[in-house]
Amino acid sequence: MASRLLDTGHEITVYNRTAERADDLVARGARFANSPREAVEPGGIVLSSLANDSAVEAVSFGDAGIIAALKGGVHLSTSTISPTFAARLAERHRSAGADYVGSPVFGRPPAAASGKLWIAISGSAAGKERVRPILAALGQGIVDFGDKPEAANVVKVAGNFMIASAIETMSEAFALVAKHGIEERQFYDLFSQSLFACRIFQGYGQSIVDREFEPAGFRLELGAKDVGLALQAGGEAKVPMPIASVLRDRFLNALAKGRGDSDWSAIALSAFEDAAVP
Amino acid sequence: MASRLLDTGHEITVYNRTAERADDLVARGARFANSPREAVEPGGIVLSSLANDSAVEAVSFGDAGIIAALKGGVHLSTSTISPTFAARLAERHRSAGADYVGSPVFGRPPAAASGKLWIAISGSAAGKERVRPILAALGQGIVDFGDKPEAANVVKVAGNFMIASAIETMSEAFALVAKHGIEERQFYDLFSQSLFACRIFQGYGQSIVDREFEPAGFRLELGAKDVGLALQAGGEAKVPMPIASVLRDRFLNALAKGRGDSDWSAIALSAFEDAAVP
Repeated sequence: MASRLLDTGHEITVYNRTAERADDLVARGARFANSPREAVEPGGIVLSSLANDSAVEAVSFGDAGIIAALKGGVHLSTSTISPTFAARLAERHRSAGADYVGSPVFGRPPAAASGKLWIAISGSAAGKERVRPILAALGQGIVDFGDKPEAANVVKVAGNFMIASAIETMSEAFALVAKHGIEERQFYDLFSQSLFACRIFQGYGQSIVDREFEPAGFRLELGAKDVGLALQAGGEAKVPMPIASVLRDRFLNALAKGRGDSDWSAIALSAFEDAAVP
Repeated sequence: MASRLLDTGHEITVYNRTAERADDLVARGARFANSPREAVEPGGIVLSSLANDSAVEAVSFGDAGIIAALKGGVHLSTSTISPTFAARLAERHRSAGADYVGSPVFGRPPAAASGKLWIAISGSAAGKERVRPILAALGQGIVDFGDKPEAANVVKVAGNFMIASAIETMSEAFALVAKHGIEERQFYDLFSQSLFACRIFQGYGQSIVDREFEPAGFRLELGAKDVGLALQAGGEAKVPMPIASVLRDRFLNALAKGRGDSDWSAIALSAFEDAAVP
């Protein structure tokens, strides 16, 4: 996302715990900050992209955090966090005279670098208005889910649940055909060209057939977190989600087997092992 | 399919238990047979499309059945039947000097009428070779799964399992966002244009958002049967399918509520009722 913002002529300051990860960006004109707070310009826009609730909390709260420095500005929060925490985070911004816009993104790093993300947004009208040029640079589609700051995160969590379910569904189907002596690749060729001719089924289906789970496009450990967030959001709103419950156990099984750093499509290995697919 | 065969210049004889259903075809030049056996030309090709194992058994076996009349011909079996029964059916054809080709199709009646089906085939090389012109008229894609007659049915059952899972997954996701106060249609607009921009998610997602389950494109009762076939095929090959198990209960719930004649996407209503989505 930072690379895309540079490409589209934005002046940016970047921060990462591992400073070297910013080297390329700095070489291309970004300023480097030594702390999250230093990356914030009072009254400006700060975009964060982090692994989970506690990472967002760590950079946002406290004297050295984003919120204390942002006064009058907007925090564009792209992390997949729990809706409950998003609501709390928005409230803290409001109290400190800053704005918060939930803006989780769908798409991998190459989609971000070429401005092809899909972005769900929600939050105050003024905040959304201010960040629109930034979002326009990053995404091919921006869908506004209203003024509840946590709404965009509910959407993100529901979307990631759908992807996890697609991976598990394909895995079970591949195990079924494989145990009946059918080539997985032929089955893949059929469904990925016809009924399921879309990116999730084509991309993850290919990884599963090839047993190619490294390097992770999206780490399995983060997928497990997101399934947990779906169940948590379902629990809060009293929504039974039987497939999400199945996914929870599947991800725990994959984590137990030490696959947290593999791509999340590696849950397929658990389905294959359960069925003793050769 | 019969309509398409007429359109592409084939001479056909048609049979249906409800004779009036053939009226249009007869008006366009098809001959009408008064029994399944009468529709069969010895040494010719007979195509059957029926609801389940027992319906296929009823028209195939016995003195008045297809097999007894077909000698030297090929039975092109497009029904979604259990792989076990498909293997038994193929064996009976072989004993009677006839050929059997499993050729279940993916696609609804309009796709059949315009030659846009996707067709999985398996069976003897000679049988497949003979029916190829027929299949070419009906399908935009034909994938050959080898010589085991039941293989194509395993593929069909796996494919229908994937569709049922997609419907249930969307239903749970819709219930989740709805209970968090988000418009289902907006969520639909996001996923159906981006990650899940393919027919199954677009078509069934639309039906669910619109709560439009009549008339059935594919009857829920048949969907329940197909989930049962997936579990049966999984049972035979020792493949645990936790999502298929969830789907079994969901379809039973929908049948219990008297929705067997609705479209199978009406399982969404069960997910909504479980979560008390208004």
